[in-house]
Amino acid sequence: MTYRLRLASALVLSAVVFAAAVPPSYGADDGHARNVILLLGDGMGYSEITIARNYHLGAAGRLNLDKLPFTGSLTTYSVEESDPRVPVYVTDSAASATGWATGHKTSRGRLSTVPGSTGLAPYPTILELAQAAGFRTGDVSTAELTDATPAALAAHVNSRRCQGPADMGPCPAYRKSAGGPGSVAEQLVDHRVDVLLGGGRRRFAQVIGDGPEAGQTVTASAIAQGYRVVTDAAGLAATSRGQRVLGLFADGNLSLEWSGERARAYPGSGPQTCTENQRPAREPSLADMTAKAIELLDRDAGPDQQKGFFLQVEGASIDKRDHASDPCGQIGETVAFDKAVGVALDFARRHPDTLVIVTADHANTSQIIEPVRPGQKDHPGAYSVLVTADGAPMTVAYATEPVGTSQGHTGTQLRIAATGPGAYKVLGVSDQTELFHIIARALGLEPSCPCERPGPAE
Amino acid sequence: MTYRLRLASALVLSAVVFAAAVPPSYGADDGHARNVILLLGDGMGYSEITIARNYHLGAAGRLNLDKLPFTGSLTTYSVEESDPRVPVYVTDSAASATGWATGHKTSRGRLSTVPGSTGLAPYPTILELAQAAGFRTGDVSTAELTDATPAALAAHVNSRRCQGPADMGPCPAYRKSAGGPGSVAEQLVDHRVDVLLGGGRRRFAQVIGDGPEAGQTVTASAIAQGYRVVTDAAGLAATSRGQRVLGLFADGNLSLEWSGERARAYPGSGPQTCTENQRPAREPSLADMTAKAIELLDRDAGPDQQKGFFLQVEGASIDKRDHASDPCGQIGETVAFDKAVGVALDFARRHPDTLVIVTADHANTSQIIEPVRPGQKDHPGAYSVLVTADGAPMTVAYATEPVGTSQGHTGTQLRIAATGPGAYKVLGVSDQTELFHIIARALGLEPSCPCERPGPAE
Repeated sequence: MTYRLRLASALVLSAVVFAAAVPPSYGADDGHARNVILLLGDGMGYSEITIARNYHLGAAGRLNLDKLPFTGSLTTYSVEESDPRVPVYVTDSAASATGWATGHKTSRGRLSTVPGSTGLAPYPTILELAQAAGFRTGDVSTAELTDATPAALAAHVNSRRCQGPADMGPCPAYRKSAGGPGSVAEQLVDHRVDVLLGGGRRRFAQVIGDGPEAGQTVTASAIAQGYRVVTDAAGLAATSRGQRVLGLFADGNLSLEWSGERARAYPGSGPQTCTENQRPAREPSLADMTAKAIELLDRDAGPDQQKGFFLQVEGASIDKRDHASDPCGQIGETVAFDKAVGVALDFARRHPDTLVIVTADHANTSQIIEPVRPGQKDHPGAYSVLVTADGAPMTVAYATEPVGTSQGHTGTQLRIAATGPGAYKVLGVSDQTELFHIIARALGLEPSCPCERPGPAE
Repeated sequence: MTYRLRLASALVLSAVVFAAAVPPSYGADDGHARNVILLLGDGMGYSEITIARNYHLGAAGRLNLDKLPFTGSLTTYSVEESDPRVPVYVTDSAASATGWATGHKTSRGRLSTVPGSTGLAPYPTILELAQAAGFRTGDVSTAELTDATPAALAAHVNSRRCQGPADMGPCPAYRKSAGGPGSVAEQLVDHRVDVLLGGGRRRFAQVIGDGPEAGQTVTASAIAQGYRVVTDAAGLAATSRGQRVLGLFADGNLSLEWSGERARAYPGSGPQTCTENQRPAREPSLADMTAKAIELLDRDAGPDQQKGFFLQVEGASIDKRDHASDPCGQIGETVAFDKAVGVALDFARRHPDTLVIVTADHANTSQIIEPVRPGQKDHPGAYSVLVTADGAPMTVAYATEPVGTSQGHTGTQLRIAATGPGAYKVLGVSDQTELFHIIARALGLEPSCPCERPGPAE
C-alpha cells in the first residue's frame, strides 16, 4: 500500500510540475479538462492494433493512436448476472461500455443497469452527469446508434437487444407503458444528447407503441424535441454549431471502408491486398463524423463561463469484421478509426484543454501467426495471408470458434492511451471502471483528490 | 515530426522536473541509473499476463509487474535473412533478444550477429558495453544459460543451436579453430560475465574440441578463468559478493514450478486447479537467483567511484509451457517470474538509482476465450478450463498450430514497464531495438540527448 501510494504521489507531483514546464501548445495539466473526447475501437485489442499497423504502415510505422504520450492497460471483465461478485473473464460490448459509462461492473448484455436487477435499476452515466453539469454531449458510432457501445452512455435497459420500440420484448420493466424510459432509441432522443451520429435508421423508424409519444416514430419524436435529422453526408455538412443533430446514415450499421477475402481453413485465403475505399460517398466517414461532432459541440466559454463538451466516438466494425474472420474489413475499420483519432488529436493541439483518450472495449480473436507450412491440413481455425505495406506476408488467424461461425471476444487486457490534462492517469494497469472516474474528475464532476481514486487492493 | 518532437520534449521536460519534485525514496530522475535490472518473461504477451493475473490473484488483483508506474508497448518483428530490409512479423527469442541486446534487427535464429552475414559479424551487446565501461554484469535464466535469451547478451553466433562445443555444426565460422569465439557456452565464460545462473549443465560439460582450451570441458575452462561453479541452491547460498559465479542447476532447463492437465481438443481439459510447488528444493527459484545475483553484483561506489551493475533476468518457461499447451505450467512460471520482479522492485526501493524494466521477447498462443458450448465438436484447437482465485471458470485456448504439436509465437506488440531513472522513456510505442538505447543511455554508455533517440519515421 505504501508503495502504491508513493507511486501515486510521484505521478501526481510529476503531473503538477509537468504543467509548469511543458510548452503551452501541449496543454497545462492541472488535471481539469474543458473537453473530453473518448475514442473506442470496438474489439480493438493489442493484436488488432498491430495487425492494422503492419498492414497499413509497415511494422516500423506509427498510427495516430500510437502517438499519444501516456499509455497503460485496462482490464475488462464483466460479472455474473446471478452473482455479481463472480467475474466473467470475457466481456461483451454492453457490460464493457457500462463499465466506463457508469463506473460499475455489470453482466453481459446489460446497458448501464444493475446486474441481477428485475425492475428499473439504472446506474447514472458519465454522459448524464456531464449533461447535468452543463457540458454539451455527443455520441458517434459506425454501428447503429442503438448498438451497445453508443447506447450505454445514455440508455438504461436490462438487455442490449431492446434497441427500438418494437424490440422491447426482453425489457418489460423498461417499457414506457410500465413507467420505464423506453427503448434505447427513445432514450437517446429523450436524453437530448446534442449530437448523435451513426447508423440504425431502421430502429428510429419504428413506431412508438406506448407512452405519451405512442403512434409516432422515434425520428418524429426527435424532430418534435428539436433535433435536426440528417441522413447523408451532404445533410451532415449542412448542419451548424448549436443545432441538436440526429444523423442516421444507414438503415443498420454504416458501410465498411475496405473489403477482401475472408480467412479460410487450410490452405487459407490470400496472399491478398485489401480493396480500399468501399464506403459510399453519401455516408460520412468516422473521421468526418468526428470532425463535425466537434464543430457542433465546441463553443467559447463566453461571459457565462459555459462548459465544454464530452464526446464519445466508436469505431464499431473492427469488432464486427473480426467476428466475421474478415481481415481486410477489420483493418480498414481500424485505419478509419485511426483517422478519427487524428481528427481528435488535431483539435486537442489547437485546444490543449482537451483530454483525448483512445482505448477499446474488449479484444477479439485475430492473431498474427507464423506462416502455415504446406500440407498442414490439420491447422486449426481459419487464416489469410496479407501482403503488407512492407511488401511482406503477414498471416492473420481466427480460431476461437469453429470455422465459418462468428469468432469470439477474448479476455486479454487492453490498451489505453491519452493526451491532455490528467492524461497521466492512464499509466499502469487500471480497470475499465476507473475510466469513468478519470473522465468525471477531468470534467470536475467528482473530486479529483488522488487519495479517493479507486485502486487495486494490495 | 513536429508533433513527435513536441511530445518528446514534453516528456523529457516532465522527467527533468519530476526529478526535482518526487520523494527522495522514489529516486531523482536525471535519466542516469547506477544499476539496471532488465526482467524478461519469455513469451509473456498481454494475454499471458492477464491469464496469470486472473488465475493467481483474480481479475481485480495486481501482479508485481502491474505496479511499475511507467508503461508502454514494444514492437518485435525480426527481418529476413536473405533481405534484411523485409520484416518478419513473428519473431523468435534469438532475433528478439538480439534486438534489445544490440539495438539491431536480425533474422530468426541468429544471436547478436548481422543478418545475411556468412563470416564473423558480431553486433556489440549492451552487456559488453557495460562491462567495458566498468559495470558488473549478470545473466540469469530458468532455461539453459546457452538458450537464446541469456545467450544474446554475451555471445555471437549465426545459429542459436550452437550452444555447446559439440553443437557447432551450423556455425563453422564461429569455431575457435576457424578463428571464431566458439560456442555460446564458451563465449559466456570467456566473457567473464560476473554472475551466470540458470540451467544447461550438459552444455558446459561438453569437451572443447579446438582452440587453446581443447580437451577440457567448458566448466573446467570456467574454473580456470576464476569462476566458482555451483550446482544447487545450497551451493548458490554459499557464494559471496565479489565472486565470479557460474550456477548450473539442471542438466537442461530448470524444473517447472507448477503442473496440471494440458489443454486438449473438444471437450477440453479441466475444470482444474493447478498443482503448485513442484520445483525440487535443490534448484533455486528465479526469485532466489535474482536476489543472489543482486547480492553478488551490488557494491558501494567507494573512493574509486566504481560503477554499478547490469543484470538480465529471464523467466524462460512461460514460453516453453505455452508452446506445450500447458496452462498451469505457463501460469506457474509467470507467477515465479513475477516474484523475481518483486525482488528487483524491493532492491530498487532501497536503491532508487536503479532502473528496473519488465518486458517480454514475443507473445505466444494462449487466449482467454468464451466458454465452449456443449456439443461444439468442431471447436478449433485445444483448451482447458481453469478455476481461478475468484472461484470462477476461465477457458484458456491454444490454436495457432495443430493440436498436440508445439504452438507458435504471435506477432502482437508487447508490454514494457519501468521504474527508476529514465523509466518514462518506455511510454508509448517503441521498437524492441530502442530498449538497447534506453539502457545504454541510463548507464551513460551513449549520449542521452533526446534528439538522437531513434524514433519512427512520419
